[in-house]
Amino acid sequence: MEKWKIIEETDISPSKWFPIKKHKVKLPNGKIIDDYYITDLNNVGMVLPITTKNEVVLVKQYKHGIKDIVIELPAGFQQKNKSIEESALAELEEETGIRTNLENLIPIGKIANVPTKSTLVTYGFLATQLEFNSRQNLEVTEDIEIIKRTPFETVEMIKNGEIIVGDTVALIMKTYLMFPDIFK
Amino acid sequence: MEKWKIIEETDISPSKWFPIKKHKVKLPNGKIIDDYYITDLNNVGMVLPITTKNEVVLVKQYKHGIKDIVIELPAGFQQKNKSIEESALAELEEETGIRTNLENLIPIGKIANVPTKSTLVTYGFLATQLEFNSRQNLEVTEDIEIIKRTPFETVEMIKNGEIIVGDTVALIMKTYLMFPDIFK
Repeated sequence: MEKWKIIEETDISPSKWFPIKKHKVKLPNGKIIDDYYITDLNNVGMVLPITTKNEVVLVKQYKHGIKDIVIELPAGFQQKNKSIEESALAELEEETGIRTNLENLIPIGKIANVPTKSTLVTYGFLATQLEFNSRQNLEVTEDIEIIKRTPFETVEMIKNGEIIVGDTVALIMKTYLMFPDIFK
Repeated sequence: MEKWKIIEETDISPSKWFPIKKHKVKLPNGKIIDDYYITDLNNVGMVLPITTKNEVVLVKQYKHGIKDIVIELPAGFQQKNKSIEESALAELEEETGIRTNLENLIPIGKIANVPTKSTLVTYGFLATQLEFNSRQNLEVTEDIEIIKRTPFETVEMIKNGEIIVGDTVALIMKTYLMFPDIFK
């Protein structure tokens, strides 16, 4: 199976907050599509943070795309001049007041979000033995409530529909498969 | 926790294939944001299809957003004048050649994909006792390889990173939590 070839790329972004590219592409079967639109949003770094008290730290906030209040793991877009790991750590600290270091991140894998339309991939990490050792530092658009649950309870929240966001579900459930003892 | 208020909405879609709205919004703290961009893509209907031979039917195809070949459950955007369930059934038949009916869909729940930027929600359904009783009917942009695995094997594919798309991971793992016997 072959990938499509990009013949021409035009930047038609209405804003730096929502980058859109128009591609002229050639399919493996020879067909040309003049206008295929994708968004090349930055990738996201996400952490499943577990404290020394065996609490998973989740963030509850309003998201204006889905126009609803959702419960997610701490995460954010990759920042300029930062690796995805450094961005994940920075977001964890800004959103929850938990500071940790690169050596404490265990890679769990990547999750694609809307692969038809978006380049966006979420890179997920597990971090354990954490403490609330720093302070929240929110942007003006952010109003975040911290929620603490045991690892087992987060799986129950997925089952009963309290946690519905794809990359958060995937990071918790991949960790559940890779490190089942954490969830006992 | 309150939602944001939309004061003004402007349609700035570059194409019907990528709808974009510009919102002027008022936050609960009183702050006004003049330009918040979201995409109001249609919702998606997705099926976890299991045949009478205990095979999960997956589709492998190139996706130009992520520019890679991915393995997913059959799914598609909600179609005009069709419910989400009818759209899921139509996509299942078009992509895999499996026809079934509304009575055979068990709702597993909804998954949000990029809640910050997109309205898009995937509605997932389980369907069992299926047969390849119809034929694939692909669009010109589609080149789909059918993959059959046992339910247990699909969970292994999530664990080892062969299946990475958020809504597919979430639908399989929610079903795993709700109906564990299927995966033994």
